[in-house]
Amino acid sequence: MRVAEPQVLVPWPECRDHPGLAVEVYPHPPGDPGSDDELDLSGVQLYVLPYGRPDARELISRLPALQVLQVLTAGYENVLDVLPDGVQLCNGAGLHDASTAELALGLILAAQRELPRWALDQSAGRWNPEYTRSLADSRVLIVGHGNIGRAIEQRLLPFETTVTRVARRARPAQAVHAIDELHALLPQADVVVLVLPQTPLTRGLLGARELALLPDDALVVNVGRGSALDTGALLAEGGRVRAALDVVDPEPLPSGHPLWNAPGVFITPHVGGGSATFGPRARRFVNAQLERWAKGEPLVNQVDPNDPRI
Amino acid sequence: MRVAEPQVLVPWPECRDHPGLAVEVYPHPPGDPGSDDELDLSGVQLYVLPYGRPDARELISRLPALQVLQVLTAGYENVLDVLPDGVQLCNGAGLHDASTAELALGLILAAQRELPRWALDQSAGRWNPEYTRSLADSRVLIVGHGNIGRAIEQRLLPFETTVTRVARRARPAQAVHAIDELHALLPQADVVVLVLPQTPLTRGLLGARELALLPDDALVVNVGRGSALDTGALLAEGGRVRAALDVVDPEPLPSGHPLWNAPGVFITPHVGGGSATFGPRARRFVNAQLERWAKGEPLVNQVDPNDPRI
Repeated sequence: MRVAEPQVLVPWPECRDHPGLAVEVYPHPPGDPGSDDELDLSGVQLYVLPYGRPDARELISRLPALQVLQVLTAGYENVLDVLPDGVQLCNGAGLHDASTAELALGLILAAQRELPRWALDQSAGRWNPEYTRSLADSRVLIVGHGNIGRAIEQRLLPFETTVTRVARRARPAQAVHAIDELHALLPQADVVVLVLPQTPLTRGLLGARELALLPDDALVVNVGRGSALDTGALLAEGGRVRAALDVVDPEPLPSGHPLWNAPGVFITPHVGGGSATFGPRARRFVNAQLERWAKGEPLVNQVDPNDPRI
Repeated sequence: MRVAEPQVLVPWPECRDHPGLAVEVYPHPPGDPGSDDELDLSGVQLYVLPYGRPDARELISRLPALQVLQVLTAGYENVLDVLPDGVQLCNGAGLHDASTAELALGLILAAQRELPRWALDQSAGRWNPEYTRSLADSRVLIVGHGNIGRAIEQRLLPFETTVTRVARRARPAQAVHAIDELHALLPQADVVVLVLPQTPLTRGLLGARELALLPDDALVVNVGRGSALDTGALLAEGGRVRAALDVVDPEPLPSGHPLWNAPGVFITPHVGGGSATFGPRARRFVNAQLERWAKGEPLVNQVDPNDPRI
């Protein structure tokens, strides 16, 4: 059964059943006989942007009645240029916490315990054990202390680490340092975890000067946005500082880019949020958000695109 | 300065300084001018077996005055055939908890988040993101609930997992199940972590019948001893059950063995205990043990080689 004039577009059939709302699935799931071209978009007021579908943002300009754009990522820099004036933006803060935090731990452990090396040894059928670094006893600096930063901290604490937190503003009651103190904190960090949105304030936050302040063999982990770490400055370190990066600049990293083979660098292709953890949490969130919308209650996760956050 | 007739052999110079004890370092550290052949071994009463040096066990038969053999691993199956009658064996339980537990988490996260795949993609300069499994929401069964099992559990809990514990005997007050219940527990496990010593009771504990009880796509992680998992039975599963193994049977895994290329299997070369975490903890432990010995106090970590543990 097609909905003639949907008010709401959602990415999953599991979010279609809302009494009082005309909800349509976009894009159509595989095997669905309907065509996206048949949709009458003139009445769409709320659009839940499909996750991991860069093409889906093109639809925004074809929604004359749009009131709310709901994205499923915490960061929203990729829709700012197509967000019409007067449309409320809601983000997906919280949906990726577990997924991204566990990848952050995976990256830290992979780098300290040389998991990429063992994977390559395995593909060569080579048993060649060697002593490695460890995570225990490490001093970890988490830069960006929103939901995901806190989720990373919770997971780090049982690993016998010391965690120091940095956010835009100091919160002394929670032992959160201000970003102004970054230069003073870097020399005491064995591991720096970047969990920052892409804003003009965060671009190049870790550049040549900051990397030079890190001790030899320190590890930089980035699970926020690639722009926070200056790729050229990292390459210039020549392996003195190591890195485990789920996000890079440029992204996607082109074939042949020197970062692929840089010493001490482990790269995953921006898969922090894209795990089985996300689906159930995202569907629960969208259903709860649509219930609020149907009842005329305020939506949660409203964000102001002009607020530069850290 | 050489000690003419050492009473104690330790593997590190940092453990040599004990008033009242004649302590010698064996094997000599690199750069030390002394030769191991010069050592008069006739008075050695306590031998701290060097870690990761299989050749060092040959010395045991040349120590006529030996009273105590201190190994630095939790398992001690590799010295049982050379342990003289009447010599007290002490193990290294506790020294590897942090190191092994963090590798266990690394293996779980690597398998669920496909880190070996990204490592191989990186070596090919290929950016090819895909959705992966996650650790969050997983039901984890820890088989073997000694120090390391508990350390793994502590690290798992913040990952939004459900942990079930199995040991040789049930401990209802701590919600520990008995090994007799294993068959009933396996069908509800997404991840099974084996942390078992090598004993006649643990050999082949996870065989064809047990693997068949696991749900499709379950993950078996082994950080104890390779013999607990039947390699042939795992291979026969053909990837239906996945595995992340720091210990294997046979070990070291020979070049060309089918396990190297088995689908869904990630192998690290028995590096669970061999990380930077170990050294400081082991030296602190040996120094405390030698202080007890010098004072005539009972040593800790005394084990009975005839006690089959789980």
